[in-house]
This record gives sequence, C-alpha cells and structure tokens, in this order.
Amino acid sequence: MKRITERMLIFRRWHCEKHDTPLIPIPEVKRFIFDCMRAVGTPDDYSQQMAEILADADYRGHFSHGMNRLAMYIDQIEKKMCDNKAKPKILKEFGGTAWVDGNNALGVVTANFSNKLAIEKAKQHGISCVSVKGSNHFGICSKYAEDALKQGFIQFNCTNTSPLSVPTRAKEAFFGTNPFSLGAPAKDGDSFLLDMATTTVAVGKIELAVRKNVKIPDSWALNEVGRPEDDPARAMKKPRLSPLGGSEAMGGYKGAGLLFMVDILSGILSGSKYGPNIEAWGKLTEPANLGHCFIVINPDCFAPGFQSRLSDVIKNLRKSPPMDPKKPVMAAGDPEKNHKVSVDRAGGVRYVRNQMETCEKLAKMLKVRPLGSVLKTNC
Amino acid sequence: MKRITERMLIFRRWHCEKHDTPLIPIPEVKRFIFDCMRAVGTPDDYSQQMAEILADADYRGHFSHGMNRLAMYIDQIEKKMCDNKAKPKILKEFGGTAWVDGNNALGVVTANFSNKLAIEKAKQHGISCVSVKGSNHFGICSKYAEDALKQGFIQFNCTNTSPLSVPTRAKEAFFGTNPFSLGAPAKDGDSFLLDMATTTVAVGKIELAVRKNVKIPDSWALNEVGRPEDDPARAMKKPRLSPLGGSEAMGGYKGAGLLFMVDILSGILSGSKYGPNIEAWGKLTEPANLGHCFIVINPDCFAPGFQSRLSDVIKNLRKSPPMDPKKPVMAAGDPEKNHKVSVDRAGGVRYVRNQMETCEKLAKMLKVRPLGSVLKTNC
Repeated sequence: MKRITERMLIFRRWHCEKHDTPLIPIPEVKRFIFDCMRAVGTPDDYSQQMAEILADADYRGHFSHGMNRLAMYIDQIEKKMCDNKAKPKILKEFGGTAWVDGNNALGVVTANFSNKLAIEKAKQHGISCVSVKGSNHFGICSKYAEDALKQGFIQFNCTNTSPLSVPTRAKEAFFGTNPFSLGAPAKDGDSFLLDMATTTVAVGKIELAVRKNVKIPDSWALNEVGRPEDDPARAMKKPRLSPLGGSEAMGGYKGAGLLFMVDILSGILSGSKYGPNIEAWGKLTEPANLGHCFIVINPDCFAPGFQSRLSDVIKNLRKSPPMDPKKPVMAAGDPEKNHKVSVDRAGGVRYVRNQMETCEKLAKMLKVRPLGSVLKTNC
Repeated sequence: MKRITERMLIFRRWHCEKHDTPLIPIPEVKRFIFDCMRAVGTPDDYSQQMAEILADADYRGHFSHGMNRLAMYIDQIEKKMCDNKAKPKILKEFGGTAWVDGNNALGVVTANFSNKLAIEKAKQHGISCVSVKGSNHFGICSKYAEDALKQGFIQFNCTNTSPLSVPTRAKEAFFGTNPFSLGAPAKDGDSFLLDMATTTVAVGKIELAVRKNVKIPDSWALNEVGRPEDDPARAMKKPRLSPLGGSEAMGGYKGAGLLFMVDILSGILSGSKYGPNIEAWGKLTEPANLGHCFIVINPDCFAPGFQSRLSDVIKNLRKSPPMDPKKPVMAAGDPEKNHKVSVDRAGGVRYVRNQMETCEKLAKMLKVRPLGSVLKTNC
C-alpha cells in the first residue's frame, strides 16, 4: 500500500477539530481494508483489489458499498462461504464471448478478471460479452465501467443479488436489488457513468439509515400489506424493496422489468443462482454463487468522434436551466465526481460513529492497526 | 395482404352489436395500413413491413404505437421528410459490429434490416451490435426483440426520439422518451419481453389521453414550474415528461440516467442527431435523422439450458403470492400476451371514436377503402 504523506497533514488538522468522527485519508482507508483482508489469509494482490474498490466507493460518496461492506466480506471468508485464495477460470470462449466460473473466489477478483477479458475481446470483435457464474458480491458496479471507459470503451455490467425486492403486485421479495452500470468516455477525461440498483434505492442505503438511526422515505420499501415501511430496521428484517418507479401506476412495473432483465443477463445466462434461489441476504450458510455480466463496446467501430459528441451532450445538459437555481442539472456520475473533489479538498472521508465502531471491532478481532489510529496521539 | 375469412364472421357479429366503434379484425388493420402506405408510393415490401409492425402494436394492446402513428408516418412521407422508397446501407463492419446509414428510409424498414444483420453477426461472433443513423421512427421496440428471441437470441434495441422529457432538476425537455426493449426466449414459445419508454410513460399514452379526453396522473408530466400537469393537451403543447421514477427523491435521477444511456447507445454512438438537437415532436421541417442500436446475444455461448432456466423464473414469478388476489403477478410481456389472447377471442381490436375519424380522413385523402368498411352494408 502507498505511504500516507501530505494528506496526513490535512487529516491531522481535521481530526483535531471538533468532529464526531475523525477524517480518514483515502490511502488510510485502503491500508485498513488491505490489512484486514490480508489478516484473513487473502493474497496481497487480491487484498489490494479489495482495498481499491471499497475505498473507491467511499471516495465517490457511495458509503453503502465501501467500508460498510468490509465486515460482511470478512465474515464470508471466515465462514468459508467465499474462497479468498481461489482464481476464476474460463469455461468456454466463442467469438466475442466468454463464460467464466468464479470458482467461489472473491467477487471483486472475479469481476476484475472478467472485465479485463471483456475489454480484450472487444478489441478483437468490436463488442464482447463475458458471463460469470460462481461469484460473490463484487462491490460497486461503476468501478468496472470506469476501468473500461478510461481505455476508451463503453461498458455495461450487472450482477444479481440476494432476494430483497418485491416485483409489482407481489407480496414477498423475489429478485435482488440487481444493479447495473453503464459507462462511456467523453473528451478530456470526462465521462457518463450511470450506476444504479434497479430498486428505488440499494439495500446499503437502508443499512446506512439503520447505522444513522433515521427513518426512510415512502418509496424505498414496503411492509407486509404493501404499504410504505418507514423504519429501516423493520425494512431490513424482511426486506421488500420497491422496484424503480414505485407503484404500478407510477411505472414500477418497468423497474420490476429491469430487475428481471438484470437477472437474465447475470444469473440466467451464466447458470449461477438466480431470482429467489439466491440465499437470503446475510444468511451465509452456502456459497453465494452469484452471476455477473460484462458487455464492452468499442465506439471506434461506429461513427468517428464519439467522445466529442458525448462531451457536447454532457456539457449542454449541465448548462440546462434548472427548476431551482440552487440545484444545477447533472449528468450520471457527476454527484460522484463532485464528491471526489470534496474528499480531495478535505483530505479524506468521515464515517458515521457506528461504522467507526465496526472498524474498531474488526481491528481488534483481526489484530490489525485500527483505522485512522496513526495520528491519534498527535492531537 | 392476407385475405380475411373466418375472422370476418366474428367481426360481423361484433360490428352489429351496440358498440361505439366497430371491431376491426387484425388482417383488416393490416390491409388498411398497407393500402395507405401503398397509396403514398411505398413499395409493397415496405408497406407490408409497416402493416405488420403497426398492427402488431395494436394486437399487443399498445394502441399508442399502432394505428395511432399511421397519420404521422403518412404526413412525414408527404412532406418529403422521410423517403419511403430509400434503402438502408452498411457503412462499416468489424467483427460483431456494423454501422448502418438508414438513408432517411422508413424507420421500420431500416430497423428490420439492421436487426437481421445483428442476428447474423451474433451467429458468427456470439454477440453483435448494429448502430444506425439517418433513420426515422421505427414503431414498437418489442417487435424487433421478439423477432430475434423467436430465433433463440437475447436481443436489446433502443432508439432516441424528439426531445420530450425533462432530466432531473431541469426546466425544459432535453431527451426524448428514449424507449428500449430486451427480449429473451424461454421454453415452449414463452418469453421475457420488456419494452419501455425510459420516461414514466411513452408520449403516445398522453396522445391517447387527448384522444379519449381524460386527465393524466401526477407522475407523467410536469408544468412550467415543475409541478405535475394533469391536462394531456397542455402536456402535449410543451412536453415535459418525467423520467422513470418521478422526483429526485423517488429515484427519478435513475430514469434520467436511462434516458441519457439510450441516447448514448442510439444517437451518440451512431452519429445521428441526439438530445435536444433532434427536431421537436411533430414539427417535420427536416429529416428526423434518428439513431437506433441493436444488440444480439446468443445464449448458447454460455451455460447450457438458458431457456429452461428462464421458463423456471417466469413460471415462479407468475405463481408468486400477490398482494391483491385479483391482480396476479406478471412477467414483462405478459400483459401483451394476455391482450393478444383477448383480441383473438374477440376477433379484432376496437379503436376509440377519434382514431376511427382519423382513419376515415386518411381513407378519403388517400382514396383507399375505409377501415372496416367491407362489411358495413351487411349489418
């Protein structure tokens, strides 16, 4: 892991101010995740991959998919539900396609492997599709799309997850939150980067509401009679997350269609588990056997000037007159770009108290240096 | 066109009962569309393609995309905005990809051409992408997905459209309603067939509300200050359709991301017009130059047994306990399958009065036999 230098100075300043929790520089976030992963016997290369993607989620402001997930990954490894030393392997290749078995390796490791393979195949065939079974939770979708768009490709990826969402008209959870990402490169490092659960919100957002002890909005989850559930703890006990769109009249059946579409591309295509056959969230009595899909398109195969045209649309969208002058119009990925700038400016991220306590417990349990401990004595 | 035989008997029976408008058998729907298209100089093969896709939309129950669109297509041809004799051509091919110029031909003709090309390329490369510029309105997306899934393929297609929808936080329309479809084959002719505008509803639904003279729900469109617009005529005057999800808190930013995603894959990739550069709906002062995208995947390249697994999920979803026993849970495409059954049972479709009047005007203007006229004298 990289050593922490200048950022530590900023960290020190922030830490000594009156904040509920300390500011943690991103390299320290990565150091802690790396150390925890290594402590449970994960090879250094894989620990590094985990550190990169989880820290990246927090850097983007998606705290639901960063440090918030570390304890779960550790738990999966310790319960032997995920093999943190395993390698994914290619089962079949044809033209621009490949079928991969994750071999119950870390989802992030399998996803990075499959994404690289998809990029190579897109170079040869203009478009590629890598379908993956036998995998685990792979973190934040947009990281893989961003890795591909930085090389000039359009990338789509998706994954199925534990049953958490209620299809339109149904009483119980059937599909996961089934997220996907689509990334595309614009000029001068700009990009379009959509990353969305196909439910109204990702389950991590409800977990965070539990951590913060706040109520959740009407459209996020339903209770047992189909009415909105505002208590995040109850919503997590027997999850019934709403598909994007909410009620049937509001177009929720489209969100339900998106949930199913993602499972077709990830679970049903790959032969992993799918729909309600996936084990309940957090149960951990068997390997997850999740499915993913990575589709990469080389825009150079079509009309020249893709990146310029995309930049044009992004810039015009950002310049669109807003309904409320205080809320500028944004393109997908802009809130995350803005969050990165604010983290850079501040010198790190700040976790909620409950998250810091989870990290303290992890540090003790795994006998690794506590998160953000390095400068505590200097304040 | 096929001759109308047995269905005419049913049609005769229905027509003679006390209904506001007559029941029109599907072959008669096709006959009328074919005759109108031919009357404006469209080659028979192309007129047939138009008849098939528009009648198919009404057969599925998507009246917004069937006969409702005929007058607009005729108008485009008569104003020389669309060349009903032109042929699309391939500009570039590489691996599983092709770039097509529609040459301002009928959108349906260009889309059928491109979809066939994509299917052939998927046979050779496992996955394919055909990107299309210089096209026109291509009717209902799901027709192309269904044509591909009947041959055993997963198919995704999308198109951009005239600016009609308001991205999250914006004041004016920027993207179209940008629909897409994803179809996948299950066992014994069953299928998953998602077809959705990435707005809460397609613009045709608002047009139909005008035809029916009824108010529209809150989540469909906004007024000039960002409040819901319930008058469909006002909503059509300066359209501000809501992205899927509705407000920002309800996940509308995801719908806005989907609107943009579709334009990336259809307009920006192909070099057609895109975003607010597309001419306003119904203006018809220049060729539309719309973009489409057709992606076809051969599921046989991955885990064997795709169709069985998809059937399993579809059946289980349909069997899911519903919140309201009167409203069974459905898979994407089921409402359309059910509508087809009811049309078959009834022996045809019934258009609203206003639509019949439009068809009467078309018949007079183009000097073709009026819709459903054949048996009028027998009642």
